[in-house]
Amino acid sequence: MSLRESELIAWIKDAVEASPAVPGLRVGIGDDGAVLDAGGRDVVVTVDMLIDGIDVVLAECGFRAAGRKAMAKSLSDVAAMGVEPWTAFVSMALPPATTREDAHELVLGLIELARRHGVTLAGGDTKRSPGPLIVDVTLTGRERARPPVLRSGALAGDSIWVTGPLGGAALGRHLTFEPRVLEGLRLNERHQVHAMLDLSDGLSTDLHRLCDASDVGAVLESDRVPLTEAAFELSERDGRSPLEHALHDGEDYELLFTIDPHGDAALANDLVFAAQCRRVGRVTERAAGVRLVGLDGAEPLAAGGFEHTFGGGGDAARNP
Amino acid sequence: MSLRESELIAWIKDAVEASPAVPGLRVGIGDDGAVLDAGGRDVVVTVDMLIDGIDVVLAECGFRAAGRKAMAKSLSDVAAMGVEPWTAFVSMALPPATTREDAHELVLGLIELARRHGVTLAGGDTKRSPGPLIVDVTLTGRERARPPVLRSGALAGDSIWVTGPLGGAALGRHLTFEPRVLEGLRLNERHQVHAMLDLSDGLSTDLHRLCDASDVGAVLESDRVPLTEAAFELSERDGRSPLEHALHDGEDYELLFTIDPHGDAALANDLVFAAQCRRVGRVTERAAGVRLVGLDGAEPLAAGGFEHTFGGGGDAARNP
Repeated sequence: MSLRESELIAWIKDAVEASPAVPGLRVGIGDDGAVLDAGGRDVVVTVDMLIDGIDVVLAECGFRAAGRKAMAKSLSDVAAMGVEPWTAFVSMALPPATTREDAHELVLGLIELARRHGVTLAGGDTKRSPGPLIVDVTLTGRERARPPVLRSGALAGDSIWVTGPLGGAALGRHLTFEPRVLEGLRLNERHQVHAMLDLSDGLSTDLHRLCDASDVGAVLESDRVPLTEAAFELSERDGRSPLEHALHDGEDYELLFTIDPHGDAALANDLVFAAQCRRVGRVTERAAGVRLVGLDGAEPLAAGGFEHTFGGGGDAARNP
Repeated sequence: MSLRESELIAWIKDAVEASPAVPGLRVGIGDDGAVLDAGGRDVVVTVDMLIDGIDVVLAECGFRAAGRKAMAKSLSDVAAMGVEPWTAFVSMALPPATTREDAHELVLGLIELARRHGVTLAGGDTKRSPGPLIVDVTLTGRERARPPVLRSGALAGDSIWVTGPLGGAALGRHLTFEPRVLEGLRLNERHQVHAMLDLSDGLSTDLHRLCDASDVGAVLESDRVPLTEAAFELSERDGRSPLEHALHDGEDYELLFTIDPHGDAALANDLVFAAQCRRVGRVTERAAGVRLVGLDGAEPLAAGGFEHTFGGGGDAARNP
């Protein structure tokens, strides 16, 4: 019997919510990270697992790039909460053939990127595994000037923005992307962001998630969605339009966020962002659903990104 | 080229310590958990990875027991810091054949034990994996009345205690043990524990770890080491003495701790503990090393517990 990831997570959420509430847990399952309150600043915790054959092809990219990507994915989640990355905890299941040099490369890939974002490795677990390389990175973040930004704060009338062009990450950017940590902090501290998440599973899927969490609808303007060169390149190869790639490919790791439209001009004039950020639509009432508008009018936008399926044979790995 | 786990961790520790210190990280790699200070109570973070074929044999124990053990191992680490378990983050790599029922059983095993210890599942990651079942549990804990207990606080002259009998966990207790959460809290809050860790890799190995962290030596009294029935049962099967099993088997998940000897009587008279806790030796100066004393005199005690080796064929999984 096959099992979709979203179905399993919903089941877990129900099972967990049947338990008594835990003091100090401000936000649990369902956002990019949980928010914990131990009496000082809010602490964000997020976890992301990288598996050889699903998230990377180790034989092609090597151990250092795999380590880098594992750290980058978790950094992207912390970025999406608009807080400062803090400490990392890394569990590694190493295949039997892993050499000392491989292990060192993996760790260097992890800590070089961590260091650049002010993060220290503070713990972990290492084991030999009969299976593929698995690297599970738990990352904490700390509230700086403002509390963490959730997915659930979007309001009808908000503008919807992204931090950069989308599509075709499988051609290479999924290994080299720079997590939008500084952007997330600045958006939170200077631009009164209402809701934010990172685009890991494709704009169409992740926009649905934001709308579901905020109980709103959205209109996406097809001619405003910024496209990467890679989206065009893939389009030439497979005949799907660059826009389709931007909507559904996933692994962009740009931030998707909403702000009050009165802030649009200030954001557009913020020199740090001017070159990359793009307004792509607006938030509507829930009843209007999630729509894509273009020259031909409006149509419903289905979630077309990536979702894991367990136990069936039907899903394909996203990369390559 | 083979690579020992301790060697890899030492390498990582060196690489990490070359980075600038991160504010608010009080204790990093090297203890049962890290200690974070976000301006309120101390927060402990620990992570432990369970792999089918290494930590459990899924085909024999089933998904629920595997989930239970994954949570129990991390709870034991938090117990060893003498703090209150708080929130859990669980990454699961599920083999292709995993059914919906399997996944539910796994999660139930995790959350039933979590709930009993006041812990809520606050996040995680779920993926299909071409390899074995892997469950990686990150657990946070909160300081309650007193700060976390480290491995590094043992003083020459301290008494060394354990919270229960040891040996032969592979016969079944490795799946059913109750993490010593209440014991760890009570030891921290009522008995001024100087140093503490949980016995995961065998008394001989873990005592060396405590001594290394505290820069002390130790004398273990062989006739005081409490033995399980399972240690005797295994002894009859394989001819090794019950004491050897208690010293080297691992996976006992009892707590090993040191206190000022003036507290021995109070601890022995603490009704909550009287039946289980046992004084097993004393802390000495570093130069004396780690020794085992019995009727035949004293001899050096080598670390004989379990350690993972990567890339070689030499290590055996601990269970069974």
